[in-house]
Amino acid sequence: MGRDERGVTPQSEDFSAWYNELVAKAQLVDRGPAKGTMVIRPYGYRLWELIQGELDQRIKDTGHENAYFPLLIPESYLQREAQHVEGFSPELAVVTHAGGKELEEPLVVRPTSETIIGEMMAKWVSSHRDLPLLLNQWANVVRWELRPRMFLRTTEFLWQEGHTAHADQADAMRETMLALDLYTEVARDLAAIPVVPGEKTAGERFAGAARTFTIEGMMRDGKALQAGTSHYMGTNFAKAFEIQYTSEAGRLELCHTTSWGMSTRMIGGVIMTHGDDKGLVLPPRVAPHQVVIVPIGRGDQALDAARDLAGRLKAAGVRVHVDDRAHLSPGYRFNDWELRGVPVRLELGPRDLESGTVVMAKRLGDEGKQSIPLDSVAEIMPGVLEDFQAFLLRRATDFRDAHTHTADTWESFADAVTQGWALALHCGTAACEDEIKAETAATPRCVPLDGASETGVCVRCGQPATYGKRVIFGRSY
Amino acid sequence: MGRDERGVTPQSEDFSAWYNELVAKAQLVDRGPAKGTMVIRPYGYRLWELIQGELDQRIKDTGHENAYFPLLIPESYLQREAQHVEGFSPELAVVTHAGGKELEEPLVVRPTSETIIGEMMAKWVSSHRDLPLLLNQWANVVRWELRPRMFLRTTEFLWQEGHTAHADQADAMRETMLALDLYTEVARDLAAIPVVPGEKTAGERFAGAARTFTIEGMMRDGKALQAGTSHYMGTNFAKAFEIQYTSEAGRLELCHTTSWGMSTRMIGGVIMTHGDDKGLVLPPRVAPHQVVIVPIGRGDQALDAARDLAGRLKAAGVRVHVDDRAHLSPGYRFNDWELRGVPVRLELGPRDLESGTVVMAKRLGDEGKQSIPLDSVAEIMPGVLEDFQAFLLRRATDFRDAHTHTADTWESFADAVTQGWALALHCGTAACEDEIKAETAATPRCVPLDGASETGVCVRCGQPATYGKRVIFGRSY
Ligand SMILES: [Zn+2]
Ligand SMILES: [Zn+2]
Repeated sequence: MGRDERGVTPQSEDFSAWYNELVAKAQLVDRGPAKGTMVIRPYGYRLWELIQGELDQRIKDTGHENAYFPLLIPESYLQREAQHVEGFSPELAVVTHAGGKELEEPLVVRPTSETIIGEMMAKWVSSHRDLPLLLNQWANVVRWELRPRMFLRTTEFLWQEGHTAHADQADAMRETMLALDLYTEVARDLAAIPVVPGEKTAGERFAGAARTFTIEGMMRDGKALQAGTSHYMGTNFAKAFEIQYTSEAGRLELCHTTSWGMSTRMIGGVIMTHGDDKGLVLPPRVAPHQVVIVPIGRGDQALDAARDLAGRLKAAGVRVHVDDRAHLSPGYRFNDWELRGVPVRLELGPRDLESGTVVMAKRLGDEGKQSIPLDSVAEIMPGVLEDFQAFLLRRATDFRDAHTHTADTWESFADAVTQGWALALHCGTAACEDEIKAETAATPRCVPLDGASETGVCVRCGQPATYGKRVIFGRSY
Repeated sequence: MGRDERGVTPQSEDFSAWYNELVAKAQLVDRGPAKGTMVIRPYGYRLWELIQGELDQRIKDTGHENAYFPLLIPESYLQREAQHVEGFSPELAVVTHAGGKELEEPLVVRPTSETIIGEMMAKWVSSHRDLPLLLNQWANVVRWELRPRMFLRTTEFLWQEGHTAHADQADAMRETMLALDLYTEVARDLAAIPVVPGEKTAGERFAGAARTFTIEGMMRDGKALQAGTSHYMGTNFAKAFEIQYTSEAGRLELCHTTSWGMSTRMIGGVIMTHGDDKGLVLPPRVAPHQVVIVPIGRGDQALDAARDLAGRLKAAGVRVHVDDRAHLSPGYRFNDWELRGVPVRLELGPRDLESGTVVMAKRLGDEGKQSIPLDSVAEIMPGVLEDFQAFLLRRATDFRDAHTHTADTWESFADAVTQGWALALHCGTAACEDEIKAETAATPRCVPLDGASETGVCVRCGQPATYGKRVIFGRSY
């Protein structure tokens, strides 16, 4: 089948071009006028809402409360935590004029909210009874991007940022891992991305964090995508903003804080984990339309039947859309919904109506088209969608495992990271990480939480390995 | 009962002080560091989420799709619609530096999104088949405020902004009125605010609109609060941004657009419509906690019973909170929840447990405390809450009607607007509106949609009245 004007460059030819063309043609996103900004179109935003709704529920169920903090932060706030300001300064957008005047102190458009939330936490926390303080915010943030890529690196993006304060390190670390678990589950259960949770090495830590944890997914070009991070801040921000409490014993103590975020970047992860040369492949749980019905033929008969069927599917809890664009050919519409990644397409023509059946075509899988009784569609569809969801997770897991190689020699390491990930022992020095990056473009993605204990020497420099287990290395987004 | 340190200035003494103290003491909001910004605390944000959830559902049910447009807008975009830029220029916050450099063109932090959405609509609309285009965005916006007031006028606020494009005036006007109806219903059904829907006079129109409609609520100091607006833009923005389509007849036509917004200002409306000298009074449908249970006495017996009861209330669909702050006296906790406006308080002490009852105290009403069987609480509570919701709407409606006076003489007009609203005939000239404002601080709030036809002369200048009906005048927020 030839590519019509809606087709996209094949992944194997140019993965980047495939991605850039697809996000636009599938109507997920459009370029904004300011450098690196994006317009999230309804189809892309609905996908985000579905992720957001589920993540929000899980955040609430674990005892966190949503709040909202100002977008504009005095520049001096960022300077209070030395590593933090150093990490973010090059990316800041700064408001210098407002209300027709030059401001006395410039305001930074938040790149993240640790500083302003730290300032407020200091006001709100005084006793051990105020702890833990478990907050979350849904917000937009701005980080100036020189090499923007829609969803993956944009000047403005949407996210949630959890910010919590605790009495001691143990409680803060429990929270850090709880957030990481939430992310692991949401990525796996909703987006069907079999992410690996692990800890970042020192060189890849968040600016100002004592420890940074991450979930890493493998994209279909073998690169890693950091899909969510959870940071234990130690007392760094508590010191900078004087977040203190009086303990039961009556002593003034510093809080231990955490922060954790998941963003619209997840949409990029969904696209690059499941998509193929025909376009998007959406996991049913995040698909704006789980099922599209395409009525075929002149007159209203097929359209009426399609609407009737849609009503029954809706009643069965299925997100269904009827494509009533009668001015477009069936073939054009089929291709369109394949491009847009709808899990299940139902075709309903005059012959189907006569025989009381409907043609079902899944977006992926070996079954081809199947003719099924019209009366059974609503009943079987929830199961069909669950199976498709499970199929995608299995497929992505198989892909990840097939592209992950244990590397004990430099040659096998260098080879592994051209195709996927290398599992290697490493000395843990920044200089050695830098050398590896310079030669292969690969970086340590994480030290996996569930990695088996292992000792030995660094795959690159031969010095004794640290971490006590293998590190995942890969090229990344 | 004396005012303890948590008490607030009585409304009758100083309504503004009452409001400012209450929003902070009820933990709805805190001041942000940048001028006029606010931190919405969990209790305030939950209230917003409850409004937002219901409004979002109604917006979706009427065929609109959510999308997201960039925060930062090139300054030149605002200049394309002359009235629009004139209206917003004094309020803009401007990003001049980003990524460590001075920008070639400054970027405005969106004060509203007509311009950037207009630019995108022009890209997305080409045929009559693309219409109507029905979009909505949930976002933060920034308008520099010289006289900030939490929720009512803040430098940054949260809102939804609907933006739609239509083939002709009739369809765009239908949309404008549909949005106004949504707002009227949400204000009345959720917030128990008996708003009056009507049209703004020319002088009070949105910058760039052809017609502006509003819902106006009466606060307990007799002032009006504009709680939502819906604008018919005519072809003003379509001309400025070239939003055009090819009609069925093959002609190139300009679209007719609308926009409509409701914001966190609504929270201010809830506070000032229902609150009293003891604090907030929250309508059950927007109350973060509809019921608070206060266990009384030493040991775990009351607390266990409270948690058990809370479980049954939750199962009955009630938002319930158990106040387990055993280190605070019952009286302190009772006052605290009255201040925070919880509709129903349940007190559960040792004597109640013995007799199998619980003491119920409603936030308002004449019944006083009632002792009711513990076993019946979960069953009767949804009805109790519905009654309380209806009671608040009736009370607010009675208050509004008692403070609205038909004024046919200047004396009665001037008197009416010191206490509430005046219903008066008006000539419709801006000069006469300005005179009225200069003398009484009252402005035309709206020409009510359901006002009876009436002709006569202007209450101020004696010239023939316009509009064909009476106009609502009042002081306003
Ligand atoms: Zn090494
Ligand atoms: Zn007049």
